[in-house]
Parts: sequence; structure tokens; C-alpha cells
Amino acid sequence: MAVFDDIRSTRRSDFVNTFWRALANQPALLERTWSSIKQVMIEPGALDPLTKELIYVAVSAANNCSYCVHSHTAAARAKGLTEQQYAELIAIVGLASQTNALATALQIPVDPEFEMSQVPPARFPISDSAPRGE
Amino acid sequence: MAVFDDIRSTRRSDFVNTFWRALANQPALLERTWSSIKQVMIEPGALDPLTKELIYVAVSAANNCSYCVHSHTAAARAKGLTEQQYAELIAIVGLASQTNALATALQIPVDPEFEMSQVPPARFPISDSAPRGE
Amino acid sequence: MAVFDDIRSTRRSDFVNTFWRALANQPALLERTWSSIKQVMIEPGALDPLTKELIYVAVSAANNCSYCVHSHTAAARAKGLTEQQYAELIAIVGLASQTNALATALQIPVDPEFEMSQVPPARFPISDSAPRGE
Amino acid sequence: MAVFDDIRSTRRSDFVNTFWRALANQPALLERTWSSIKQVMIEPGALDPLTKELIYVAVSAANNCSYCVHSHTAAARAKGLTEQQYAELIAIVGLASQTNALATALQIPVDPEFEMSQVPPARFPISDSAPRGE
Amino acid sequence: MAVFDDIRSTRRSDFVNTFWRALANQPALLERTWSSIKQVMIEPGALDPLTKELIYVAVSAANNCSYCVHSHTAAARAKGLTEQQYAELIAIVGLASQTNALATALQIPVDPEFEMSQVPPARFPISDSAPRGE
Amino acid sequence: MAVFDDIRSTRRSDFVNTFWRALANQPALLERTWSSIKQVMIEPGALDPLTKELIYVAVSAANNCSYCVHSHTAAARAKGLTEQQYAELIAIVGLASQTNALATALQIPVDPEFEMSQVPPARFPISDSAPRGE
Repeated sequence: MAVFDDIRSTRRSDFVNTFWRALANQPALLERTWSSIKQVMIEPGALDPLTKELIYVAVSAANNCSYCVHSHTAAARAKGLTEQQYAELIAIVGLASQTNALATALQIPVDPEFEMSQVPPARFPISDSAPRGE
Repeated sequence: MAVFDDIRSTRRSDFVNTFWRALANQPALLERTWSSIKQVMIEPGALDPLTKELIYVAVSAANNCSYCVHSHTAAARAKGLTEQQYAELIAIVGLASQTNALATALQIPVDPEFEMSQVPPARFPISDSAPRGE
Repeated sequence: MAVFDDIRSTRRSDFVNTFWRALANQPALLERTWSSIKQVMIEPGALDPLTKELIYVAVSAANNCSYCVHSHTAAARAKGLTEQQYAELIAIVGLASQTNALATALQIPVDPEFEMSQVPPARFPISDSAPRGE
Repeated sequence: MAVFDDIRSTRRSDFVNTFWRALANQPALLERTWSSIKQVMIEPGALDPLTKELIYVAVSAANNCSYCVHSHTAAARAKGLTEQQYAELIAIVGLASQTNALATALQIPVDPEFEMSQVPPARFPISDSAPRGE
Repeated sequence: MAVFDDIRSTRRSDFVNTFWRALANQPALLERTWSSIKQVMIEPGALDPLTKELIYVAVSAANNCSYCVHSHTAAARAKGLTEQQYAELIAIVGLASQTNALATALQIPVDPEFEMSQVPPARFPISDSAPRGE
Repeated sequence: MAVFDDIRSTRRSDFVNTFWRALANQPALLERTWSSIKQVMIEPGALDPLTKELIYVAVSAANNCSYCVHSHTAAARAKGLTEQQYAELIAIVGLASQTNALATALQIPVDPEFEMSQVPPARFPISDSAPRGE
């Protein structure tokens, strides 16, 4: 299977984990998902590979995906995660979950100061909605 | 209030955001939460401050905490987050959520290869359970 | 037990899955839950039985309920789910989770155009609040 | 509308909050939901009314339901919630969310000691599966 | 912008909702997400377009994504969703969330009968792991 | 280890469950988490110990933390939880999850009557933002 071959050659390993095997009967989804993983996690970017994996583990833990916590913690270790970094990652995941719950339970309104930094003008090109002539 | 003063001097800013004000009537919780934030997010560690904020934003988005997404995206920008890094963070949060959902919907069993890297022996000191004499 | 008998006769099967057995000690909850399932999932309505199960599986996956993903995927298969339909269901669950996460991470404001279609006037009968004389 | 009348007389108040109005176009769901609320939250039981509301607020916060956090915090106040009790409720919601996230991120296996207390034999009446003769 | 043009021509409408505008600064993510939406939601498949939207709304509600609940409820209405179908969708989302919570709170073990139907042999092509010769 | 000793003496039991062992390699997190548990769950307060555990179980179920559902259900039993109280707890967790999902799926706006009771003036001491002179 072409995707499996690409997984193996990209990772330089014969091991194809069950996640990908489980998608084998759904070729379009397999193709699309692997292609996204390559673009987002493997192509060089502004974040280094280990940082990307830390973010992936954090999201997987918050989403309570046992499979993904396991596979991406393993991936992070393979990319050099130290015990100290792991301890700090876990501590942040726990603390953020706590303050998330506090903010939600108290229904704290967003400070106007934060609204601004969230959405830079360029991201919502309102001008685009007007002069198009198609 | 002592905690508010510490927030201001630690951050070198007069601005105390609503999250902390909302805890003002619950002094023990306010004290404990701020103390944790200082230890986890501000004390120097193995992860740099910006990486910590990226993880915080990722967890907050996965937990759907609007307040925390706003406040920690602002904090990340204040620590130098570039548009390109932000774009990559968002892409990972989205992609991880997708593969989390796929793994969950398909109930994919964890590969034995991953079990090992998740729990290093040292983390579960079983020997401790035996020889204690207290 | 009356509810177990009704489950068996309604489903034309002697098999009573563990979910219902686990509620056996809580008769009111068992009765209420089964009665709701019958009304919502079994009584003929505007959605066909298979479509109902697809929605049930989708919610269960998003809520990360392993038991319910298993039991309702089995129910969907029993109602004729094909491999192709299953593949599309899984793909939608994954994609929706991704765009959910993106919209949340970016804190995208709801378009005014969507507000309207969400809440048809009839659903909030404000007039009702005025002239009641009870 | 009969259900609205029952809500008013049960609560001894003319106020019918938007949640119920929003279900007005779906009579079966309105009827079923109100009937469940009456059975679970209003009928006397082993837990007192305030404790029930605390649990309801806790679940609503963990599920991130802004409407329900608001409405059930109001209900708890109406049932006598003190500021001190509220502070403790919030603290537990936050702390539980933190340890939930830690246990999930670390994928900690359940102690065998806990398995037992979770599922008392009576709750899974296995004997029922054998001798039924219906 | 090419993607915006494709959105407009595919939907035969000048309206481009904010979700897509919010991704305008992240071209790779915009391109990838729209391409996935087209493949999954628009290309003809085994599920009809309205059923797909029902599943999308269900996942978005379970994931508590306000934006996506709004936009996909609107999309479902545009594809012919009737009030009766909507009422049934809402009822299933509510009921599934209840039984999800019950199964989770009670930690009900999956019936062996369900394990089988979840993972058909073909989906995990174990044979593939052996004879590859790359 | 000092924290383990304190766990044992506080609980008057030699048993230290895996959650704490799993944090053994992360002393600061172990210390901080146990200290929080003592303050929130063990120190006498306005809520009795059993009520606190009920809230903890409710949050853990809503957050889908299998470990914490198990450990805190066991803790609640140790503190005297009766079968009838447990049945009511489970029923509330299920019902709240249903109405949470309904309110979210219908995007019901918060009644102005509830806004008030959520945020008592004292909790947001606005006056504090003005006259500080540090």
C-alpha cells in the first residue's frame, strides 16, 4: 500500500502502528490524514519537532484519547523528550485543566484587553467581502 | 491584597486580569492557584516560557475554555509568538483533535510498543510498597 | 424484571446487554432510561432507524464513551450499516472534531447569518410569558 | 401548556426560564425532560436538594455548559448555598479537573483495590441471564 | 483568493462565512481544511447530504463548539431539515449524552458481543505486517 | 518519601494508590497536588466529606477520567455512601449531561435573571483596580 510505504520511508522504520492499519479500509481518509500529518508534524516549520509533539500530547490528554496520548508520548520520547521536560508538560496539562475548569465554573468574562490580541485585523480581511466581482 | 501585589510585581504590570479578581473572595484558592502558576509557568525550567504558553493554549482550546484561550494566546504573543508559530499551533490543535476523534471512534487498541515508553519503571516504584515499616 | 422483559420482546432477542443490567439496582433510572430509548430510538419518526444510530455513534465518539461507541456501532451494523457508510461516518466525526477545535482555538465569532436559522421564532414563544393568568 | 403550568406550580413561581421555552416546540422532549427533573431533583430522596444542585453545577461546569452553570448556580443559591460552600464547590471542580487531567495524561492504571468498590455484585445480576423462562 | 473562489462556486453563493475568513492568514490550513470538507461533505457518497449534516451538528454539539453548531444547523436547514427531524436530532443528542454519562459514571465493561462488530477483520490487515519486502 | 508518609498518616492506612506513585518522579507536582487535596478535601469546611466526594465523582465522570471515577467512588463508599445515595448521584450525572447537551445543541441564551446570581458584586472588586498606589 502506497501510504504504508510512505509512512515507513518517511519514518525510516518498518513499524506501522495500528492507527494507520485501522484506516486501511478507508483509503481516502488514510491518504488525507497521513498527508496532513506530514505537512503539520514533519515538514520543517517555525516550531521544532519536539515542541510539536508536546502540543500534540497536550491536546490528546485534554481530549482524553488514550491511544494518542500513548503514541505521541512515545513519539516525543523518540524526539528527545527528557524526564524533566515530560514532568513540566504534565504539570502544565494539569494546571491548565484546573484553571480552565475554574474559569468555566465561575463563567468569567473575557477581559477586553485579551480580545484584541486574539484576532489580529489581518486574519479577518473584511475588505474582501466588498469589492469582489466574480 | 498580597497576591495581587505579587502578580503585579512578578509580571511588572499594574494590570490584574479578571480571572484573579474573580478569585478574590476565595483567598485560599487564589493563593494556591497563583502559587502553582508561578511554579509551573514562571520559574525557569526545562521548557522555555513560550513553549509553556503554547501547551497552555492547546489544552485550553481542547477543553473549550474561551477565557483561557484568550488570556494565554495573549500571554504567548507577549512572549514573542510569531504569526507563523501561531498558525502551526492552531494546525496541530486541529489535527490532533481529528486523530483523537478517529482513534476514539474506531476504538483502536494501544500498540504494545507504546505501552513501554509511556510508563518508565522509575515512575511506579513498586518496591516502595513492600519494605516500609512505618 | 418487567423492563428486561420489555427489552427482550421489543428487540426480539434474549440478549440484554450489560448497560441495562448495570442499572438493575436503580429501578427508576432503568425504567426512565429504557422508556426514553424506546421513544427516541425505536418509535417511528422523521429520521430512519439507521440514521438515528449514526447520530448516536457520533455523539458517543465525541463524548469519548467507549461502551456506547461499541454498543451503538453494533446496533448500526444490525440495522444495515455498510462499510462505505461506516467509513463516511468516521470521516465526518474526525473532520467535525477538527473544525470544532479550529473554531474554538481561534474563537471565531458566529456569523449573524447563522443566528437566525438556529432559533426559529416559534421555539421561544415570548408571548406566552405575558397573558397567562394562572 | 400543561408542562409550563406544572413547572410554575411545582416551583411556586411564574418564571419559566428559557431552557423550557426552547423545548416548547418539541412536546415529547419537553414532557420527558421535565418529568425526569421532577423525579431526580425535586422528589425527596437520600440526597438533600442543595447537594443535588452542587452535583448538577459540577457536572455542568465539567461539561462546559454555560447555560446550565448559570441556571443551576442560581438554583443552588435559591436553596441556600452560602459563599463558603460555593467557594469549596469551585475549588473541588478545579482540583478534580486537574487530577483528572494528570491521571489521563499519565494513563495511570486503575488499582485493583478500586475495581471492587465500583461494581458491587448486586448491580450485575448475572444469575438473571440464565434461568429466565419468559 | 483561489480557495474563497472555490467555496463560492461550489456553494453557488457569494457568502463566505467567518470560519474560512479566519483561516485566510494560514493558507496551507485553509487549503487542506476546505479540500477535506469538499471530499467528506460535498462529494456524493453512501450517506446523503442531510444525514451528513446531522452527524456534523451532533458532533459539534457534543464537542460544545458554538460556531459549528450554528453553521451546520444552518447548513442542515438549507439542505431541507424539517422541524420534526430537528426535534429528533436534538432528542438523540440529549439522550446519547445521558447514556454516555451513565456508562462512564458506572464504568460499565464492554460486552464481548460488541467487540466483534466494532472491528471487522478486514480493517486490521495483520497479514500486511508479515510478507512485505520493502 | 515525606509525601507518601503524610498520605499514610493522614489516611491512617498503609495503602498508597497508584496515582501518587505515578507522581513520585515529579516531586514538586506530587507535593503541590497532595497539599491541594489536603486543603480542599480533608480540612474541615462548609461541605461535609461525603458531599465533597460526590462532587469529585461527578466531575470525574463528566471529564471521563476512569481512574478518578474509580478512586473517588471508592473514597465515597469509605465515607459512608449508601446504595440509594449512589443511585441518586448517578441519576443526576446522567440527567445533567442530557440537559447540558440540549442547552448546547439548542444554543439557548442565558436568562438575564441568572446572570445576577452567578457573579455577586463582591467577587469582582472593581474598586481595587483604581486606588492602588504600588
